[in-house]
Amino acid sequence: MEVTRMLARYVVNATYESLPADVVREARRSLLNWLGVAIGGCRHEAVEIALATVAEFSGPARASVLGRTERLDMLHAALINGISSHVLDFDDTHLRTVIHPSGPVAPALLALAETRPVPGKDLLLAFVLGVEVECRIGNGVCPSHYDQGWHVTATAGVFGAAAAAGKLLHLSETQMVHALGIAATQAAGLREMFGTHCKPFHPGRAAQNGLFAALLAARGFTSSAEAIEGRRGFARVMAPEYDLAEMVNGLGERFEIRYNTYKPFACGIVIHPAIDGCIQLRSAFGLSADQIERIDLRVNPLVLELTGKRAPRTGLEGKFSIYHSAAVAIIDGAAGEAQYSDARVTDPAVVALRERVHALADATVARDECRVTVTLRDGRVFTRHVQHAVGSLARPMSDDELDAKFRDLVTPILPADQAEELIRLCRSLEDLPDSAALARTAVPRIGKERM
Amino acid sequence: MEVTRMLARYVVNATYESLPADVVREARRSLLNWLGVAIGGCRHEAVEIALATVAEFSGPARASVLGRTERLDMLHAALINGISSHVLDFDDTHLRTVIHPSGPVAPALLALAETRPVPGKDLLLAFVLGVEVECRIGNGVCPSHYDQGWHVTATAGVFGAAAAAGKLLHLSETQMVHALGIAATQAAGLREMFGTHCKPFHPGRAAQNGLFAALLAARGFTSSAEAIEGRRGFARVMAPEYDLAEMVNGLGERFEIRYNTYKPFACGIVIHPAIDGCIQLRSAFGLSADQIERIDLRVNPLVLELTGKRAPRTGLEGKFSIYHSAAVAIIDGAAGEAQYSDARVTDPAVVALRERVHALADATVARDECRVTVTLRDGRVFTRHVQHAVGSLARPMSDDELDAKFRDLVTPILPADQAEELIRLCRSLEDLPDSAALARTAVPRIGKERM
Repeated sequence: MEVTRMLARYVVNATYESLPADVVREARRSLLNWLGVAIGGCRHEAVEIALATVAEFSGPARASVLGRTERLDMLHAALINGISSHVLDFDDTHLRTVIHPSGPVAPALLALAETRPVPGKDLLLAFVLGVEVECRIGNGVCPSHYDQGWHVTATAGVFGAAAAAGKLLHLSETQMVHALGIAATQAAGLREMFGTHCKPFHPGRAAQNGLFAALLAARGFTSSAEAIEGRRGFARVMAPEYDLAEMVNGLGERFEIRYNTYKPFACGIVIHPAIDGCIQLRSAFGLSADQIERIDLRVNPLVLELTGKRAPRTGLEGKFSIYHSAAVAIIDGAAGEAQYSDARVTDPAVVALRERVHALADATVARDECRVTVTLRDGRVFTRHVQHAVGSLARPMSDDELDAKFRDLVTPILPADQAEELIRLCRSLEDLPDSAALARTAVPRIGKERM
Repeated sequence: MEVTRMLARYVVNATYESLPADVVREARRSLLNWLGVAIGGCRHEAVEIALATVAEFSGPARASVLGRTERLDMLHAALINGISSHVLDFDDTHLRTVIHPSGPVAPALLALAETRPVPGKDLLLAFVLGVEVECRIGNGVCPSHYDQGWHVTATAGVFGAAAAAGKLLHLSETQMVHALGIAATQAAGLREMFGTHCKPFHPGRAAQNGLFAALLAARGFTSSAEAIEGRRGFARVMAPEYDLAEMVNGLGERFEIRYNTYKPFACGIVIHPAIDGCIQLRSAFGLSADQIERIDLRVNPLVLELTGKRAPRTGLEGKFSIYHSAAVAIIDGAAGEAQYSDARVTDPAVVALRERVHALADATVARDECRVTVTLRDGRVFTRHVQHAVGSLARPMSDDELDAKFRDLVTPILPADQAEELIRLCRSLEDLPDSAALARTAVPRIGKERM
């Protein structure tokens, strides 16, 4: 099965008009969510170090670093924006593969769109196609590929970036085949790196390498025409088990972006049902911390394995504590980045409540499920059964919830009016004549020359 | 076994004084051979395309593109020079792993040496260490890693480049651990790409990515401390079978560069014994084509499988023709790049002789062995039994032979006096105060400002 060529042909021939309305809507939502996490992450240490390192290697600065005043050439901008967008672990997730689809694709497109006129429709189409290619390749090699130790966001993501960038560059079918091949031979990224700066480096590098693959292919650089399915191609070399048909069946009919999900809370996804339940009870009964005698959480055993940290000392450790997370959910009614600062984790009021949180592992409880019981000092007991946490496919975040998450992430970095402008730009992206406006509205404005 | 840390510690602590004299000599020979093939390859199509693509992305131009007048930032120079050096498939080979050791290491070092003062001794030491790290990692994962489909020159090479560059950057042990980790998570390159532009792209990208890993680590970018041996680290993810002890046993005692070999002829290594035998008979008996009735070659069956092309039409096809190779060996007494031009392959005199070449597969003949019989029109018969071809470990190329190969490759690109100067520089590299002279002597001199 000529998978590489079939994917290339599909990407080259697909038109905006062929995209169903709900697919376009999900692309807009994905892009807004991605912009928010990239801007929100732009001051992280990993970003600062990478930015300082590439500063002396940037060609003429034609692309924006989201949330910041620095400008870089588009390859380096793709790298840095890709890092920013994954550094909070708050970006979108294609649950079947655990690919974070936007991370490798969006930064390549945004940077390209600053160097040539790209109408919003073209950007949306290229984005949908990039996500489609990476998630389909991921479907074809997962779970064995991920189980083997590959960070599939990086290894499949580089194909997505190449396909998306290649679409904007109007590659021919042969060039697109080569672009996918040059991407294949750069596919890299080990799960061993989780917990280090290299994790967010992965989607950044995938974006940069995929974009570079498309640029090389546009000038005639060659690769194998069977880069994915060949005897020593991506699938056979990098996945103990794979299914090539998964990659191409129903191209143009099924769209993987329909299965994209967004995290409402800035922590590991397994704590989300507990947070969701706590916030629901808080809202329903106007709960406050001083009323509460104890909070009992009945959760899947994996939850305590991954996030059972009783006494976190830093914001990062707080993300691995179901106790801290439940406490801030009750006190703040939220679990965004602000709730995972060092200050919030050591706040005496939060600490006092988290010590009254009790979690019980129960194998009959599903991973996206939680039973929350709040016992008040006056003896009243409130319970809530969360069957599927908000943000799951069964209970997707609403547009309003996504907007609120976006504002939370962006307003510490950019003025509120710019945050609103970005929300408006994403909402009407298909009408935007020049999508460079996205990146350019996502940086601090200094003086009039930037207006 | 803490392999990553043990390798890092060795590289950080090793001194020039600890290197045996024969190791330093082999490093000089490797560098001269590498410079020759890089300069000789600098006009290849793959180089032209890559150079045109990166032109708009180069930061301030501080590093040379070997053989050419263009200058780039050091990361891009490492990429391009790495491509040039492998594009002719004429570079050095570590036979046990089939790693081409210099390709990923030398370009990173040469570029770095143009941006800060690097004495020749430091360059030699860093080069030896880079080769040591990549070949040891290769020893530890090969042959299963290569058999799986990985182009080990790229996947192990990125570690070599990181280690070598990290040594010149004076990384601490912890930084070196991270540099190796950032290298590990960029390890990529599929054998599926053989025969396309992506093959030489591999060592170029390995050089660039390894150098980038060292630069990131120098500023505090973090990675796993068990990038090679960890549960989801390089070895377990990328090799069905591996031996960590191979990577660290006898560090500082055994040196892998002692097993480096150089190709005397610009074609697949399996034809080398036949060419060697033909050149020997030509020299011994002053043979010329018109005297010859027929040439009979008795070779290992693999030789005909790989290089049995009877009627090549292009220079590249000529490299896969034992018939053409034997013909030019008799007529020209050589099989360098000049013998594999399109013109030489279609030259009527060469074609006439190659049609009188007969090759017989014989499973009792070893791969680096050949029995050559030349029958003259006057009835005389000359035979030569080549047990080990020149260029093999058993019959290494002499310094004079390496110099001659270097001149052959370089003089079509640079004036003869520059070729001689480069030979002198490599021969006395340990006395060179600033090894930037290497790269700067390896480019065309335009006007006095470059002198």
